[in-house]
Amino acid sequence: MEKKVLSAIVENKPGVLTRVAMLFRRRGYNIYSLAVGETEKAEISRMTIVVEADEKMLWQIIHQLSKLIEVIDVINISETPSVERELVFFKVQADSSKRGEIIQIADIFRARIVDVAPESLIVEITGDSGKIEAITDTLKPYGILEIARTGKVAMVRGSKRGNNK
Amino acid sequence: MEKKVLSAIVENKPGVLTRVAMLFRRRGYNIYSLAVGETEKAEISRMTIVVEADEKMLWQIIHQLSKLIEVIDVINISETPSVERELVFFKVQADSSKRGEIIQIADIFRARIVDVAPESLIVEITGDSGKIEAITDTLKPYGILEIARTGKVAMVRGSKRGNNK
Repeated sequence: MEKKVLSAIVENKPGVLTRVAMLFRRRGYNIYSLAVGETEKAEISRMTIVVEADEKMLWQIIHQLSKLIEVIDVINISETPSVERELVFFKVQADSSKRGEIIQIADIFRARIVDVAPESLIVEITGDSGKIEAITDTLKPYGILEIARTGKVAMVRGSKRGNNK
Repeated sequence: MEKKVLSAIVENKPGVLTRVAMLFRRRGYNIYSLAVGETEKAEISRMTIVVEADEKMLWQIIHQLSKLIEVIDVINISETPSVERELVFFKVQADSSKRGEIIQIADIFRARIVDVAPESLIVEITGDSGKIEAITDTLKPYGILEIARTGKVAMVRGSKRGNNK
């Protein structure tokens, strides 16, 4: 099954996350990644949900989400031209002899070194899934101690607003 | 109340998110932002949770989270030296006469232009809360059409792993 990206505009209230999570749970859909953050309005949050689903399942998820009163709007962002990125931290094993090589890799991927310790570095990168996969494979041989990913965030290209508010 | 950042290592199974969300809901704690993504191990996810809480509440939250069987480890990342960042997209109103100014602002903040349309631009930036706030204020006068934020992700500085796995 393919990974699909949903963008939901929801009320910023306690309980919304529970209801959304329960909806996915009840139907047995596993959420691959989830990013919940503020929007331009304090009372409104945006949830970007990545889920593995076929077309029919996706249609059902969107339908069910739309019925929740706290959900103002939900769209399948995968089907419109959009920018999709995620932010990832890698903590990579690196003593002074390997540091130069890793800094070089970071440069190639336009990543940034955000922490340097005697035995390790933290590399910060933003990109789409392909780029994240590529840098992961390149850093793996050095020893990845830790990875932290935000989960994807997405925005419809062009002047049109993706979600209606 | 201060915003605190928690980093939880959890099993990557359906239902984990529901249980974590319900725990916050039951106690009336509002989650400010939440980022759930994969880690270096497929069967494990990391949740970065930003919550407004005083010391006592935070202690309770950590205690309650640790009791969930799917939660492998949870730490208060705010109290250790750490890198904290988030990824934000801004869709900014910009016809050709304003485009140059916005590109200049993006440069100053080391942000990137990821989409150009006749009437708007999408600016991508990563940074801590202060930087995000500063660019928001700078872009506001042009007209922000849409904002999408991943929510914070955090990693303990140095070679030590932040969470035990």
